[in-house]
Amino acid sequence: MDLQFDTHNRYNPLLAQWVKVSPHRTKRPWNGQVEKPNLQELPSYDSTCYLCPGNQRSGGERNPDYQDVYVFDNDFASLLPTTPSDAIEMGPHGLLKANGESGQCRVVCFSARHDLTLARMEIEDIEKVLSVWQKEYETIGSNEKINYVQIFENRGAIMGCSNPHPHAQIWSEQIIPDIPATELVQEAMYYANHTSTMLMDYALFEQEVGERVVVQGKHFLAVVPFWAVWPYETMILPYKRNLQSLCDLSEEERKDLAYTMQQLGIRYDNVFQTSFPYSMGVHQKPTDGKAYPGHTMHLHYFPPLLRSATVKKFMVGYEMMAMPQRDITAEQAAQKLREQSDVHYRSTLH
Amino acid sequence: MDLQFDTHNRYNPLLAQWVKVSPHRTKRPWNGQVEKPNLQELPSYDSTCYLCPGNQRSGGERNPDYQDVYVFDNDFASLLPTTPSDAIEMGPHGLLKANGESGQCRVVCFSARHDLTLARMEIEDIEKVLSVWQKEYETIGSNEKINYVQIFENRGAIMGCSNPHPHAQIWSEQIIPDIPATELVQEAMYYANHTSTMLMDYALFEQEVGERVVVQGKHFLAVVPFWAVWPYETMILPYKRNLQSLCDLSEEERKDLAYTMQQLGIRYDNVFQTSFPYSMGVHQKPTDGKAYPGHTMHLHYFPPLLRSATVKKFMVGYEMMAMPQRDITAEQAAQKLREQSDVHYRSTLH
Ligand SMILES: O=P(O)(O)O[C@H]1O[C@H](CO)[C@@H](O)[C@H](O)[C@H]1O
Ligand SMILES: O=P(O)(O)O[C@H]1O[C@H](CO)[C@@H](O)[C@H](O)[C@H]1O
Repeated sequence: MDLQFDTHNRYNPLLAQWVKVSPHRTKRPWNGQVEKPNLQELPSYDSTCYLCPGNQRSGGERNPDYQDVYVFDNDFASLLPTTPSDAIEMGPHGLLKANGESGQCRVVCFSARHDLTLARMEIEDIEKVLSVWQKEYETIGSNEKINYVQIFENRGAIMGCSNPHPHAQIWSEQIIPDIPATELVQEAMYYANHTSTMLMDYALFEQEVGERVVVQGKHFLAVVPFWAVWPYETMILPYKRNLQSLCDLSEEERKDLAYTMQQLGIRYDNVFQTSFPYSMGVHQKPTDGKAYPGHTMHLHYFPPLLRSATVKKFMVGYEMMAMPQRDITAEQAAQKLREQSDVHYRSTLH
Repeated sequence: MDLQFDTHNRYNPLLAQWVKVSPHRTKRPWNGQVEKPNLQELPSYDSTCYLCPGNQRSGGERNPDYQDVYVFDNDFASLLPTTPSDAIEMGPHGLLKANGESGQCRVVCFSARHDLTLARMEIEDIEKVLSVWQKEYETIGSNEKINYVQIFENRGAIMGCSNPHPHAQIWSEQIIPDIPATELVQEAMYYANHTSTMLMDYALFEQEVGERVVVQGKHFLAVVPFWAVWPYETMILPYKRNLQSLCDLSEEERKDLAYTMQQLGIRYDNVFQTSFPYSMGVHQKPTDGKAYPGHTMHLHYFPPLLRSATVKKFMVGYEMMAMPQRDITAEQAAQKLREQSDVHYRSTLH
């Protein structure tokens, strides 16, 4: 069986799930939906943007005249601090279960500039974002009702992002949601069986092999994981020493993480000469005070584009009913990303 | 805690997963991406369509001059009959695993008419589709290398469907993919604990309570499951006697399933006066020859629309990193669907 030619299933050890890979299928023609290309030049300040400095938000409040990073409570939060957390059970053998849940939702603007993106920001400015994320994780997590903090960024209209102003969200809550909970169980099992951490072992392996590596920093690695589902899915992993949250970062490591994120972002944008859409998220240690010796902090990037700036991969039908499926292999995607220039295409346009 | 007002998590007993429900969040304004409205009037025959009778397909073959249902092998199959099925294991502690897999991919045209959809077909014609699905499931499943048969339909460009000609796909293969495999385990555990079938118990409960029912046929029920993830997600379930595959259907039951599918489709189209996009799939008993006493055949419908014919729900960010999340409740969605006319809006336009 040839991993670059034959249909096969790959195992995702983080989620204990399989993904189907059908490399020969890249040849099929595409007559389906194409997205609007994202060629719009944005102004550096937009008077109608509720995230720009000095502007009024949907909730009525006015943003301060902030310079770099700015954080506030989401005006349309999914999780609220005062929600009662009682449980309901109904139906045959208690089949219908529901639990109330409290929490908090925050928004983090990366920059006063409406038109920037992480990929086009200076490393020092990305470091400032990372420092704020770290502070938020620490402060929110110290609330004893908050056991898990999820930092994520939806980038691009195609990802349901309703505002191009560069920003992330932080949703924090009482439970550990299913996806990180599954990862933690898998990491703990690996640790129990092998007395080493799964993702550190994995990162070192990828660093040696090289074929799925996209960016290699001094401390962090951006790789297309062997089990990637989205065409250009990547993970950022530490490979020098184990880190469990942003709080564990030394200054040098923070700088290197910022560098790796910037370099990955530049390569993404260069692939189709577009502002590459994605959802990105940081999986850190829960804030429930327990120890998670098998856990390694990591970042996931899930970008939807497949063939061009306007043709994406649809996770539908078979993927919704049976299992995820992809056409190009992780190795092909990694090569394509690795080949890109480390200079952003827009900086050479002007 | 109020299920129609407070943030809470609901349990999906079929997948052993939770979904977050934030009902108060429906109030937030939408400034994000809108889809192209689907107002195009299609011709009943399209000379450029590779699914229309008499036309040439991408693979070179020519379709016969078929009248109603027509089945053929997918020209760009993800699964092929001759793929070797050897296993590969690499990396630290065998972390990287891959298995070759063979299988077959088929396409089922529902009608010679390019412009029809299931929602606008006569019940007798939907019955013909169901009979062909049944025959395919039986024939393909009798191949001893095929252990699972997945029938699904991607409807609408927004669902990655590249051709509006009404059709489904059938992907069949050696393994039981993760999603149906998880459902089968959950159904088996329920059966072991309670000596009754989970989905039959559930269907009877919903039929009695009524608030999540959309269509009640004589034998089948269309409900918005308590644990629905997509805004207007539904399931079709038998509620009179347990059925495990399309082969178990009596003629009367097949007619009733066709009726329930048609009625559900009409209500979907009527909600936003548009051809409602969705992915639909049938979960049947595996074809590995084993007994699955806890299993009930069912259909899932996963439609992406949320607010209008052009504003969909984005499963991104938090949903990709943590767990699925929805705004409108299952009960609100069911009420909206139930209130719709049982006559298709287009039949009153002319
Ligand atoms: O086979 P199609 O219709 O060309 O393709 C569509 O359905 C497939 C099966 O659900 C998906 O893998 C593709 O992403 C989607 O575009
Ligand atoms: O909060 P936003 O950016 O308005 O909304 C976006 O991100 C949320 C969290 O990932 C999703 O639930 C929404 O579907 C998406 O549109």
